[in-house]
Amino acid sequence: MAMEAQAQWVLTATGRSPTNIAVIKYWGKRDEALILPVNDSISVTLDPDHLSATTTVAASPAFPSDRMWLNGKEIALSGGRFQNCLREIRKRARDVEDEKKGIKIKKEDWEKLHVHIASYNNFPTAAGLASSAAGFACLVFTLGKLMNVNEDYGELSSIARQGSGSACRSIYGGFVKWCMGKNNDGSDSMAVQLVDESHWDDLVIIIAVVSSKQKETSSTSGMRDTVETSPLLQYRAQTVVPGRILKMEEAIKKHDFESFARLTCADSNQFHAVCLDTSPPIFYMNDTSHRIISLVEKWNHSEGTPQV
Amino acid sequence: MAMEAQAQWVLTATGRSPTNIAVIKYWGKRDEALILPVNDSISVTLDPDHLSATTTVAASPAFPSDRMWLNGKEIALSGGRFQNCLREIRKRARDVEDEKKGIKIKKEDWEKLHVHIASYNNFPTAAGLASSAAGFACLVFTLGKLMNVNEDYGELSSIARQGSGSACRSIYGGFVKWCMGKNNDGSDSMAVQLVDESHWDDLVIIIAVVSSKQKETSSTSGMRDTVETSPLLQYRAQTVVPGRILKMEEAIKKHDFESFARLTCADSNQFHAVCLDTSPPIFYMNDTSHRIISLVEKWNHSEGTPQV
Repeated sequence: MAMEAQAQWVLTATGRSPTNIAVIKYWGKRDEALILPVNDSISVTLDPDHLSATTTVAASPAFPSDRMWLNGKEIALSGGRFQNCLREIRKRARDVEDEKKGIKIKKEDWEKLHVHIASYNNFPTAAGLASSAAGFACLVFTLGKLMNVNEDYGELSSIARQGSGSACRSIYGGFVKWCMGKNNDGSDSMAVQLVDESHWDDLVIIIAVVSSKQKETSSTSGMRDTVETSPLLQYRAQTVVPGRILKMEEAIKKHDFESFARLTCADSNQFHAVCLDTSPPIFYMNDTSHRIISLVEKWNHSEGTPQV
Repeated sequence: MAMEAQAQWVLTATGRSPTNIAVIKYWGKRDEALILPVNDSISVTLDPDHLSATTTVAASPAFPSDRMWLNGKEIALSGGRFQNCLREIRKRARDVEDEKKGIKIKKEDWEKLHVHIASYNNFPTAAGLASSAAGFACLVFTLGKLMNVNEDYGELSSIARQGSGSACRSIYGGFVKWCMGKNNDGSDSMAVQLVDESHWDDLVIIIAVVSSKQKETSSTSGMRDTVETSPLLQYRAQTVVPGRILKMEEAIKKHDFESFARLTCADSNQFHAVCLDTSPPIFYMNDTSHRIISLVEKWNHSEGTPQV
């Protein structure tokens, strides 16, 4: 291999992906391994200057194994989700040539070349702010850049999905819909951009941090418990969400803030409702969240139409 | 009328009714005026020595109007619910004769005779402990005693229901089922006793007061909002609850604590879930409630079978 002759080089790529906040929520998988959801979802991708993950990936023949650091602390890459993303990107890797550095990597070399990954979040991890969405979107995007992958964003979103479901939506800016898809192999479960970030540029998103603690139930195990124990979840997924998706797409296209706000609040509350309907129940809100919601409801009510 | 000749007498009756705690919850009315529910419910009536209402009713030709005092403070009797209970009991009033006091009241006299009602709760009012259930059950029961009403408990429960839905269940001790009924006039919406208080006498009920404040949303307006805005409520009422009612009756009959505890927790959580699914959302739990539930779940989980 070309790389063996020049064992000291390091090739790097850096990327940044914002987190996204769902306005029609994803909660519940129909396939745990492939991360296929029980319903479509829609989110808005935040400004990368605000909440985002920044990831640098490096490949070098000097690296004996794949390793990763999250916020400066090494974490295990052995999990299936990391392995799935790495495998899918490596499968699509292409020739890379950097004449200045004298690096030449053939497509097939990537299978044996190990990577080091360093990722930083500029916001709290595992606090309900979709840190894994930003993280996996960024990982897939940056690995793709490093390995000269030429797939379109839809394909990348489908790979990011296998790292963390909602990561598929962070591949795009603006408003993004994750189409649940029908195929058992997940090939049609990917994100599409509904409108780009310029479409509704006077929309302001306020994130209120009500607790600095990590949430007690991870999304993965919480969703699994909900799918297994909540009698209301399937009704939500099959009967309630499809109508809301159509209405939400319409509201976004028309800049209809009133409908947008009502649907977002209703769906957020229903997501928390199915969490509560889980055995044992999952609480993602505390007294401070309750007070904020009550304040917003009173404000909107007193103005006649939603302001927040 | 016989009573006119002896204007100074006062006839009294006193009764005591315990509150009840639903194990399959009542939430949502299909008829607001008659108080007809969207699903059956099952409750356990508490020991009257613990949480109960004590009511004294007095009738006298000296009283110019009906009046009521709750916990020593006069409250308006003008509401439809009080008027419905008073009307229904008066309709069934019979002759009363007290030879010692020289009182003789003919059946038809009750229409013109006014009552004074004094009721005390030995526990916080409007804090989610069904104070109105105990109160209306006691009012109906005690008025019936005063007016020599001869109806069976089922009929009395149907009258108490028109004061406060869950009051119909406080007419009986032990485990009680409120059958929602089918008739539009509510004639078949009444409580039946499943088993009496001796059936499961080693069952201990612990009531933890997590806040001394009155709840922010009354049950009446909360239920109305849920019926009007929650997409999940009808599914719960029509599809989830009927199966739970059957399983709960079975668990109670068999002293099957494991099933009883699981169903009770699941249904309580689902009740809170449909409250959350309401617009605006209704919060009846606070951080302390969440901590208690988490503690109970961990305890039960660590023991393998439910202990609490």
